[in-house]
This record gives sequence, C-alpha cells and structure tokens, in this order.
Amino acid sequence: MAVGAGKLPPLQPVPGVRLGTACAGIKKPGRKDLVLMELAPGSNCAGVFTRNAFCAAPVTVAREHLAACEHAPRYLLINTGNANAGTGEQGLRDARSCCDAVASATGVAAEAVLPFSTGVIGEPLPVAVIAEAIPAAAAALDSSGWAAAAEGILTTDTRPKGVSVSFEDAGRRYVVTGIAKGAGMIRPNMATMLAYLATDAAVETAVLQRILSDAADMSFNRITVDGDTSTNDACVLIATGAANNEPLSNPQSALYAALADAVQEVCVTLAQGLVRDGEGASKFVTIAVDGGRTEQECLDVGFTIAHSPLVKTALFASDPNWGRLLAAIGRAGLDELDVNQVSVFLNDVLIAEQGCRAATYTEEQGVAAMSPEEIVIRVALHRGDASASVWTTDFSYDYVRINAEYRT
Amino acid sequence: MAVGAGKLPPLQPVPGVRLGTACAGIKKPGRKDLVLMELAPGSNCAGVFTRNAFCAAPVTVAREHLAACEHAPRYLLINTGNANAGTGEQGLRDARSCCDAVASATGVAAEAVLPFSTGVIGEPLPVAVIAEAIPAAAAALDSSGWAAAAEGILTTDTRPKGVSVSFEDAGRRYVVTGIAKGAGMIRPNMATMLAYLATDAAVETAVLQRILSDAADMSFNRITVDGDTSTNDACVLIATGAANNEPLSNPQSALYAALADAVQEVCVTLAQGLVRDGEGASKFVTIAVDGGRTEQECLDVGFTIAHSPLVKTALFASDPNWGRLLAAIGRAGLDELDVNQVSVFLNDVLIAEQGCRAATYTEEQGVAAMSPEEIVIRVALHRGDASASVWTTDFSYDYVRINAEYRT
Repeated sequence: MAVGAGKLPPLQPVPGVRLGTACAGIKKPGRKDLVLMELAPGSNCAGVFTRNAFCAAPVTVAREHLAACEHAPRYLLINTGNANAGTGEQGLRDARSCCDAVASATGVAAEAVLPFSTGVIGEPLPVAVIAEAIPAAAAALDSSGWAAAAEGILTTDTRPKGVSVSFEDAGRRYVVTGIAKGAGMIRPNMATMLAYLATDAAVETAVLQRILSDAADMSFNRITVDGDTSTNDACVLIATGAANNEPLSNPQSALYAALADAVQEVCVTLAQGLVRDGEGASKFVTIAVDGGRTEQECLDVGFTIAHSPLVKTALFASDPNWGRLLAAIGRAGLDELDVNQVSVFLNDVLIAEQGCRAATYTEEQGVAAMSPEEIVIRVALHRGDASASVWTTDFSYDYVRINAEYRT
Repeated sequence: MAVGAGKLPPLQPVPGVRLGTACAGIKKPGRKDLVLMELAPGSNCAGVFTRNAFCAAPVTVAREHLAACEHAPRYLLINTGNANAGTGEQGLRDARSCCDAVASATGVAAEAVLPFSTGVIGEPLPVAVIAEAIPAAAAALDSSGWAAAAEGILTTDTRPKGVSVSFEDAGRRYVVTGIAKGAGMIRPNMATMLAYLATDAAVETAVLQRILSDAADMSFNRITVDGDTSTNDACVLIATGAANNEPLSNPQSALYAALADAVQEVCVTLAQGLVRDGEGASKFVTIAVDGGRTEQECLDVGFTIAHSPLVKTALFASDPNWGRLLAAIGRAGLDELDVNQVSVFLNDVLIAEQGCRAATYTEEQGVAAMSPEEIVIRVALHRGDASASVWTTDFSYDYVRINAEYRT
C-alpha cells in the first residue's frame, strides 16, 4: 500500500554525473540491486549520515573516504539486499573490498569510492557477487541513468522516488536532481534511507555541506514512519561544477539562496515521497504545529503525535479521535502547557479547544475531514511565534505484516 | 489475546475496606461498570497520578480532595466506559456531581470522595446514569468484594488483575491486597491504568506516599505496551490502620521495610499483569539491561527497545532479529557508547557481541529462545554497575485491530 499515484517524474540529467545499474543477484536473481554513480573529476561532495551508534560498516568507510581530502570521490557504489550492518570487523573489510573492486574496474584510488548498503542487517555482505557485477554497472554508466538507479536502490519500497528542480541565476540555468529510497525504519536523524542529489553548479565543499545539512534538517529529519532510526542512512549532495560558474563560496549570494531553495525542495519532495511509500501506509499526514515558544517544542509536539501508535491506528481507521491527539500533546513534555489555550484542527475543521471537543464540531465534519488520503493535523499552541511541521503515516495491518515477515 | 493463564488468585480482605460493584449501564447494559470502595474512618490514603498535561477531570478532582486535609477520603468511586477526559469545565462539574451523589448516599462530605474514570475520551460523563446506580453499589459493599471490583474496573482488558501478599512484623500479621486495570495506552509515568491497593497497617500519610511512589517507580513506571500515556492514570494506596499497630512513621523500621517490600511485590505483580494482558499481546518480554553507568541509561536502552515497532513486530513473528535490537540500542542516546562492548542475550543464548552476531550463535538457538510466550532480552553494556528492567509486549495484528476499532 502507498499513498497517491507516485509516478516517477522525468529526471533531468546532471552534467558531470553518470549512473549505471546492474542485477548482481545479492538477494534475488534478476532484481536491479547494484548502482554505480560516476562523478566528473573536480566534483565536490557533501554527506549526512545516521547518528545511530551502531552505524553500518559502509557508513564508517564512506565517512573516512569523504574526509580523505587527497582523493575526492569519483564513484558511489550502492547495493541493496544486504545492509552490511552488525557485521563487525569483517563488515569493514567487506566494504573496503567493494571499493577496491570499483577502483580496479575504473582505475581510480579505492579512497575515491564511497560505499553504501541497505537491506537485511547482520548477514555477511556477498562481496564476490557484488564485485562480479561491477563491470556490468560500469558498462551501463549513462547520464540518463537516474530512473534506473532510482529503481536499483529500493528495498521494501513499492516505487521509485526522484525529482528534478531547475533554476536560473545570472543568466545561467542550473539543475538539481535527486533520488531516494526508504519505506520503513524512517525517523528523524535519518533512517534506512539513502538519498543522492547532484547539481551541475560549482560549489565549495564547506558551502555544499551547509546547504545539504540545512535541507536535511527541514526534510529527512522531519519525517517518521515508525520511530526507528537505521544503522545505514546516508544522504549525499554532489556538485559537479559542469555549469562552469565561479565556484559558490558566499552564503549571502543570490546563487546560494537559489541553490539552497532548490536542494531543499528536492529533499522535501523526496522525504514526503518516502512517507507516502511508508510500510503499510494508507494515509499521508502533515502535522503542523504553530504558536510554540520555540521550534523545538513544536517539533516535540509534532513527533509525539506522529509516533503515537494510538493516533496512528486511529488514522488507519479514519477515526477523528481528537482525544488521542490531546493525550499525545499533553505528554510531549512542554513546560507550563496551558491545555485550555490549545486548539486542534483536522484540515480546516476545528475539532478541539479549551481542553475538550469544540462546540462547533460535529462527528460528521471529523469523518469527512479524515476520509482523504492526505490529511493535515494542525495544532495551535497559542504561546509563541514558532512553528514546525512533520510528516508521517498511519499504522496498518500491513505495517505489522511487512515487518513480521521481512526476514522469513 | 493475552499471555499466560492469568487466573485471578484468591484476594484477601483488608480489614477496614469494603467494596461494592454495580451495573450502571454506562456504555453497555448488564456490564459491571461502577465500583465503590469504602474506607474505615481514620484510614490514610496516598496517590500517584498521570503526568499528562491533559489530565482528566476526575484526576484533577481526586487530587484536590486528597489534598483537602479536613476531609480524609472515605469513599472511592470508579466508573468505566467513559474517561471524563477532554471534557473541559463540564467534566469538572460532572466529576464533582458524582462525588456529591456518593456523599448524599452515604452521609459523608463530598470532599471525602475520590472520583476515578476510565474509558472513551471526550464524551460527556453520563452523571445521571452513574448517580442512579450508586445506591446499588453502596448496598453491595462487602469486605470480600475485591474480586468483583477487579472485574468492575476493566475496559479493553481481557481478564481481572489482583493479588494479595501478607507478612508478619513483631508478631502481627498484615495484608496488602491490590487490583488493577489497563491493557493499552500503557507506558512509564502511569497510563490508562487504575490500581487500588490497601493494607490494614496503620501508616502515617507521608510515609505511605513514599512507599507508594517508590513502588510505582519500580513497577508501573517500568512497563510499556505502546508508549502512550493516558490522561486518567491513578494508583491509590490505602492504610486502614485496622491492625492497630503503632502508626508507622519511621522509614528505618523493620515494619517499613516489610511493608514497602509487600507493596512493591503487589505493584510489580499487577504491572506485569497489565503487560501480559496488553492489547493484542502474544509475548511477555522482560528487557533486562545491566552494566550501565547509571540506572537511567539502562532504562533509556530498555525503553528504546521496548518502544521500537520493528523489535515489537519481530517479537510477534518470534523472529530472533538481533539486528533490530542492536539498532535500537544504538539510538538510545548513550554518551560514548562503545558498541564493541555490548552483548545481547535472548534468555541464556548469547546472540550478539562486538557489534555483530555472536560466533557461537546459531539461528536454531535463536528461534528456540523466541518460541516461548515469556522471553528475556538481556543487554550487557559493560561500562558500569547499574541495571534496570522494563517489561513489554509484542505488536500484533490484534493491537491494530483493537485500536482501529475501539470507538466504532
């Protein structure tokens, strides 16, 4: 199940990036499960990674290689079917072996390869199977390979996610294209999600990192399906410089603002795409909290609602159960919360105020507001000027089925 | 579904306490839904209540009445079927009206009555229906009424919970009897749970409060079914003094230690009973964390595992998915966690160490360890001397069904 049509839009090539996808047979034969991305020499690269203390071996190696300034990244290798997580020292050796295999197939240094894995935790990575398929992925490298790559990085996802945004600055046209995967284990601070964005703008690395970190904070860090944080999350932003602009170094410039907007738009679209394809999702829910003293307390309220199994099962049932919403707001840990000041809306319908059901509210209004696939829950705290939104899904039978059966 | 046989053991009367149960027809006709507890004059009373900012009207009124020293509690009135929560000013008036009704039926001051409600949130309390049934509950008052009361306070529970513990001190025999309800919305800091304990010991109020708070912290505050905290939780401990001992005032005394142990034993048994009857529960899971720097970090790890939907669905599937356990431990927020020091056991089977599957572990061992209804997940952090346990259940199709259908 998934929310909305979710057809992959046309993805614009990014000059300086080529992608190749292959069927290595890591978990199932015939499935696209290996993606190679090639970056033109001189490209810059920024990354954000999981904060889980048990981070997977490829995350450790990708971080190391990204920090090794003498070899700028030239290739990204992404496999699905096996996360190479919970695999100890052997896992680190395996991740490095995959980099070595790319290096020998392409003639770059192993440190110029960033490895990424997603799939089952705790199984040894089938390095030989992956290495054997690398030449096929390299042979398939093509600047129009984004759509195939969007397929090749999926696990329990039901559909690929990708988007392109283009913009103009000082007479030049730039593009940002991104793809992502992830359907479960999604929550703030990244989750079993992988996302790859590229632009043809020339951008200095520190500025690129700031643009990516800010965008991730407004997108991937504001979504949740089940509250779990994965060991493998990574999001990478590549700037190839093929547009031949003066390399962007000034955060006050118009190009910075335009690029940051475009990257954030791509990240938000991808993040919402992950939620719409959340495991077992039948609803896409925006929780918009305003009137908070700080943005953080708005996020606290938003995530407490978004993580509540009682709210999520009510959403699944299309039940306008405002009592469960009030209960979740009440346990979000806000100092001196005056519950009589709180108003709650379903779409445009005021359902609760002054600690109880709104006088004007009728159950029919609530049922009507709950019936679409896309719902906005708005919480007005009336104690400040801050606001924040998070995005989530309901909790369905299918969520239990998918996660009870995943390994078997 | 529920874990274990769960037959209600014989409940010993507590001299000084009588209980009467009636069928008021609050939600369904013919169902025991109203309980009146009568406390002998001179009884002392301690309580712990929900920390949810949206606390229900009866919680507010019970707190007020408990604090009003001039009228010691003489009656507790508990209704199911309607939580009188999210009901605003009208809810407060309704809770007070119920106290008035008990007062006029029994001849005590309204402030000597503590009201409790559990059930659906946001519907007006049917005061007239309750008031009409109070005489029947009063007529049924009996010192052997504990078992009927244990039935009369249930909502989505599948079975009553109660236990008696007796002990001797200085040649005198004392009893502690308790009953509780609650099956969902269970988590630390209380939850839609109500618990009533009584002892015939004479105990000063401040000491009684300390014994209850300590016991709740080691029991009701260490269980979770779904992470939600209710608006209505309450736990009350009554000391009637019918045993005619010198009133207990010294926390260093042998009687204090013996009574505190007995109260804690009753609370832990009731708390575990709530988890075993958790909504949709098919497993009873103890998460025992040791080797932590502080008790709090052990609790953080325990609750992060206990709240993980991915762990809970794996438990439902009897899947020894140690990868999800490691991922949960890794996101519990511990400072400087060295994942290579962490060991994880299922019952006595070492399943993971040094960040990966244990070399000695076989999938057959894991499957065997997961098959019983009662499972212990042990996490050894190896970085200190603190330890703590929490208790939880799995996440099943039935959990979704029960909570998607509860209002309809």
